[in-house]
Amino acid sequence: MTRIAACQLAPSIADLPANAELSAGAARAAIADGADVVVLPELVTSGYVFADAEEARSVAVRADHGVFAAWAAACTARQGAVVVGGFCEAGDDGLLYNSAALVDASGVRAVYRKAHLWDTEKRVFTPGSAAPPVVETVHGRIGVVVCYDLEFPEWTRTVALNGADLLVVPTNWPLEERPAGERPGEQQVAMSTARLNHLAIACADRTGSERGVEWTEGSCVVSADGWIVDAVGAGAGTAWADLDLEASRDKHLAGAAHLWDDRRPELYERVTAPRA
Amino acid sequence: MTRIAACQLAPSIADLPANAELSAGAARAAIADGADVVVLPELVTSGYVFADAEEARSVAVRADHGVFAAWAAACTARQGAVVVGGFCEAGDDGLLYNSAALVDASGVRAVYRKAHLWDTEKRVFTPGSAAPPVVETVHGRIGVVVCYDLEFPEWTRTVALNGADLLVVPTNWPLEERPAGERPGEQQVAMSTARLNHLAIACADRTGSERGVEWTEGSCVVSADGWIVDAVGAGAGTAWADLDLEASRDKHLAGAAHLWDDRRPELYERVTAPRA
Repeated sequence: MTRIAACQLAPSIADLPANAELSAGAARAAIADGADVVVLPELVTSGYVFADAEEARSVAVRADHGVFAAWAAACTARQGAVVVGGFCEAGDDGLLYNSAALVDASGVRAVYRKAHLWDTEKRVFTPGSAAPPVVETVHGRIGVVVCYDLEFPEWTRTVALNGADLLVVPTNWPLEERPAGERPGEQQVAMSTARLNHLAIACADRTGSERGVEWTEGSCVVSADGWIVDAVGAGAGTAWADLDLEASRDKHLAGAAHLWDDRRPELYERVTAPRA
Repeated sequence: MTRIAACQLAPSIADLPANAELSAGAARAAIADGADVVVLPELVTSGYVFADAEEARSVAVRADHGVFAAWAAACTARQGAVVVGGFCEAGDDGLLYNSAALVDASGVRAVYRKAHLWDTEKRVFTPGSAAPPVVETVHGRIGVVVCYDLEFPEWTRTVALNGADLLVVPTNWPLEERPAGERPGEQQVAMSTARLNHLAIACADRTGSERGVEWTEGSCVVSADGWIVDAVGAGAGTAWADLDLEASRDKHLAGAAHLWDDRRPELYERVTAPRA
């Protein structure tokens, strides 16, 4: 079993030292409670609602920054522990990326740059152009996407076909209206994506109002069968799940039905231009 | 507004005359109650749990069969009415297909052959190899897939990119266990697929135990925003929704976010071989 913790946190806008301590502290606490995989929100080191690109640049870091060393140090407390969280990346090319780092006790294992930028993020960030990483760990293969990426089935399908057992999603879901009694739409998507790919999914969302933006507070862990095992709800907190990630590799459904074998890739077009 | 009716029915296995009357009667009744688009279950003319291919062949029909004339006759009672339902198709090639016909007062407008066959269907049917139709009607563009097809995001994405405003899904969902209080997983998929494509979806499921198989009884209509407008639940009945299908064409989300413009088709690979 792999113990997964999705931490719902409230970073402070443009305050890197405070967010470094918040994120490393959350990782240390979750690992102390037995977490094997800790997921932290999107842009947890920087906050989200930047006044402009210059403010984002003021808290942009590279993968060799001390905050990741602090996450790696947290991982040393438990054999095989992994921390994944979002950060504002200062690229070697001088551009800013909305990125996520996967870290273990050895340091940064992978950096992923969000490929699907949401709304005003386009004013600050350059979209990534590399496929999501699928990283071998002692717990299984961990794929990483960021927030709005989850809403593009082409993207999540690729992660699953590339062998991920667990998809981790650092996210900042801005609050949307929804019918009374309904789960957030983003959680519906996570559940469906898990079911359609037989892939466990852990989403770490934000809490804490920031410059007038409220958040969905939708942190959750979803089993490969598509059911929410735990969700945080309002406020700071952690969604916990003990999952057999090996189970994600069995794509059999009932009888002769099989999620992979039943695909018809020879029929799937890469549609580039939607019909008007 | 388009009034959509998803009819949950209990066809009789291998009894074509009874099922012809059942399906035409359901279409007539729904249209009398104001339905513009009527969706009937998968294989509604034949039943589902065939003993063998020979039994299926005994109730297989072509698109010129009288049952579709009866559906077309039902459509004459209301300007622009459309009926979509599943049938066991006798192909000109001598093969059997799990198909759906879209019919209006003028007759059969389109036939679609299910491309993703579920479990033991593979012993009876040949899978289709044509893309789902997207048919222009006075109510908007109607796309058609059948049951398990809905669980392949490559397939539903193509229907949406090809301009469908409404996706209709004749289905026979065999009952699966699910956690208490949860909607069926297939409905979760319909909700997510609607949201990710801003596309209304109407699913007509079965009721009535057949040779020991129980059904999910999950007939529902989902808005383009991804919320269930109406669902039937246990027993025979009809899910109703009045939807503005024109709204499906607006793929804008908040601010500068746009479901189509935000895609990165240049990055999407057509993955044919999943990693072992």
